[in-house]
Amino acid sequence: MNPDVEAGGHAKITTGTYANKFGIPFEQIAAAYRRAGADSRLQLCGIQMHIGSQITQAAPFRAAVRKMIPLVKRLRDRHGLEYFDVGGGVGIVYEDALASGRDGWWKSSSSKRAMTLADYATSLVPMLRDLEMEILLEPGRFLVGNAGVLVTEVLYRKETGRKHFTIVDAGMNDLVRPALYEAYHQIEPVGKPRPGALCTDVVGPVCESGDVFCHDRSLPPLQRGDRVAILSAGAYGFSMSSNYNTRPRPAEVLVSGTRARVVRPRERVASLWQGEKRS
Amino acid sequence: MNPDVEAGGHAKITTGTYANKFGIPFEQIAAAYRRAGADSRLQLCGIQMHIGSQITQAAPFRAAVRKMIPLVKRLRDRHGLEYFDVGGGVGIVYEDALASGRDGWWKSSSSKRAMTLADYATSLVPMLRDLEMEILLEPGRFLVGNAGVLVTEVLYRKETGRKHFTIVDAGMNDLVRPALYEAYHQIEPVGKPRPGALCTDVVGPVCESGDVFCHDRSLPPLQRGDRVAILSAGAYGFSMSSNYNTRPRPAEVLVSGTRARVVRPRERVASLWQGEKRS
Repeated sequence: MNPDVEAGGHAKITTGTYANKFGIPFEQIAAAYRRAGADSRLQLCGIQMHIGSQITQAAPFRAAVRKMIPLVKRLRDRHGLEYFDVGGGVGIVYEDALASGRDGWWKSSSSKRAMTLADYATSLVPMLRDLEMEILLEPGRFLVGNAGVLVTEVLYRKETGRKHFTIVDAGMNDLVRPALYEAYHQIEPVGKPRPGALCTDVVGPVCESGDVFCHDRSLPPLQRGDRVAILSAGAYGFSMSSNYNTRPRPAEVLVSGTRARVVRPRERVASLWQGEKRS
Repeated sequence: MNPDVEAGGHAKITTGTYANKFGIPFEQIAAAYRRAGADSRLQLCGIQMHIGSQITQAAPFRAAVRKMIPLVKRLRDRHGLEYFDVGGGVGIVYEDALASGRDGWWKSSSSKRAMTLADYATSLVPMLRDLEMEILLEPGRFLVGNAGVLVTEVLYRKETGRKHFTIVDAGMNDLVRPALYEAYHQIEPVGKPRPGALCTDVVGPVCESGDVFCHDRSLPPLQRGDRVAILSAGAYGFSMSSNYNTRPRPAEVLVSGTRARVVRPRERVASLWQGEKRS
């Protein structure tokens, strides 16, 4: 299950509707610019749109930009706007993170027929070219999402008679996306996998049933001490991490070619109560 | 909506089933103790049960303890166990946190007919008294959940034509329970409320649609600069907080009678990248 791979698929990451908190309703924008433009303390310089998150098709972006262009031109002429920010939301392919990596980090897996950056550009550039404005875009997840992995170690395996569990030492405090969005993350053994396959839940050691990285996933057999990589952890991974269950956050390692360096050391337990004072 | 107020009401906090990762299946317990007891490096001293979270009725605890007692006695006699830990899960009343506070911090609101500690004790003590074992219990949320509030300030109000939003300066990074469990938290103006009522979503400033403290809640009208208290934030509040959106965590203030002290200062932005190294 990966409800958040399609545009607007998960309620928590849908943004461009009247029912959520973001933005200015389309029909109120011109009036808002008029009001702001009348204030001598403000200088209007641009306009931004943002239609949602994890959108893997070009069509929604194309439709949104097409809808925006007449308004953007009007506001540009009236208020001297210099930039048009077409926002973020460019999705990555979570199910096939390795394959998309092999084709080049910028290209989503073609088997899913997800948009490539070329598709994205081809869709938008013809409409944007004639605006004579600076175009900004915010493809943060697309740039770093599949560039990061969470490496974790198998602590033990457990069989309840009805289910098999693989308990690892990373938890929902380190990567909350599965618990928060029911998000799918590919999980791969580090190094040569053992032959065979086993249907297992990969779970963390945190005291919550939601502390699960995958349900009933077919994986090569794993033993205590094996390491697995939870893929696509480069965006909304460490940045959403917490100290829940008094767990210090893991080290961050930057890999460049064959070179690896710790760029942020493992947090120490003692740092969790640093600054606390006796009452 | 408050799906987690009843036992097992929310999938993420259900624990005592074969489908989740916790514990040892009932029928495997005796064998596990035999195996552990045969290891001279281990000393068996107790047994723990844990049936779930946010359970506000005594019946599930009574049923579980009744089921455990014959096994506990057998293990006590066989392995010399000294304690029986009846676990946690004693629920609090999120919908009526103030009323339950007025009746005494330990008593859930009787209008919801939630279990009181007296109900809990009356249910379990007769079964436990004759065990001649030390009884441990883990009512953490019950002790501190309704003792903590998250105080936040109204930044502005917004009307989309279809919905009203009250934007506050606390976010899902400070209190993730609504985003994570669709949890209900009572929200009360600090000080004397303005007359009237308005149906509003109280939302944070984090760039996620899930950054919402309540949907369509009837609240007294709120203005920029007003403070509101998000109640029942004493458990699973600060302990689950993160720095998402580069947000430093708030100060913690301990109130005792009329005395208030900062026991953990507000986190500084600079501390977020403390320890990071240039690559």
